[in-house]
Amino acid sequence: MNDEHFLQLALEQARSGLAEGGIPIGAVLVADDGTVLGAGRNRRLQDGSAIRHGETDALEAAGRLRASVYARSTMYTTLSPCHMCTGAVLLYKIPRLVLGENRNFLGAEDLLRDHGVEVVNLDSEECAAMMRAFIDQNPAVWNEDIGELDARSS
Amino acid sequence: MNDEHFLQLALEQARSGLAEGGIPIGAVLVADDGTVLGAGRNRRLQDGSAIRHGETDALEAAGRLRASVYARSTMYTTLSPCHMCTGAVLLYKIPRLVLGENRNFLGAEDLLRDHGVEVVNLDSEECAAMMRAFIDQNPAVWNEDIGELDARSS
Repeated sequence: MNDEHFLQLALEQARSGLAEGGIPIGAVLVADDGTVLGAGRNRRLQDGSAIRHGETDALEAAGRLRASVYARSTMYTTLSPCHMCTGAVLLYKIPRLVLGENRNFLGAEDLLRDHGVEVVNLDSEECAAMMRAFIDQNPAVWNEDIGELDARSS
Repeated sequence: MNDEHFLQLALEQARSGLAEGGIPIGAVLVADDGTVLGAGRNRRLQDGSAIRHGETDALEAAGRLRASVYARSTMYTTLSPCHMCTGAVLLYKIPRLVLGENRNFLGAEDLLRDHGVEVVNLDSEECAAMMRAFIDQNPAVWNEDIGELDARSS
């Protein structure tokens, strides 16, 4: 698997989200033969969605799949996965997750590892810079997306 | 909070799902003043969805909420929550979860408790009987929904 290549596809999703006025987090689910099963991005702002994060949106785009397909797939995401997206990876027993960065948000990576999921952090400056700029400019929306209290809105 | 009352609302969602030809699991997110913030049901079969379980569908129906609203809410679900739905409860720091039964499926209840979530099992015969009948009649679909290999379809 060319991890850098598939991370770029996730980053393209994040950029599309940003262009739509959304939170720039993207993800792609990829089969072991390199087929992109589903691509998605955070849709909180575009769709008013509470459950469409990058990873869950990619899973939804992939549609109904057999366990045997998930078992040979990798989830690529531009940002360390939150508890919900971590749980989705565990539910479907996806054995490998590649993330762009965890400088801006450290998700439940340890929980993935505890369940035997291989977690690879590519520590991408491109991913980190895009997310950092968004958070700096939109702290309230970002806090909402990760379920954190925001001093000005709570 | 009248837990039995709100579990009945979740069960109504499950029954609606069954009537639609779907997997009969329902959920409602309820504020501390008894307001139903969102109601949902598993939509795998109706919508071809991989991410709309009872709990996530209820969260989506509730829409964008502040962390301070989730912090005073309870999630009611007819069945012990899978890893994805558990993760969604943890993401939004919902402090309390009431489930109908865990005889047919034991989800990640311990993970919820480890994070300080109060988990209450009402051990409802109504919930258990409906789910048991569905699983008996639709084992392949059920295995797909919980990410398990199915002997006949994998």
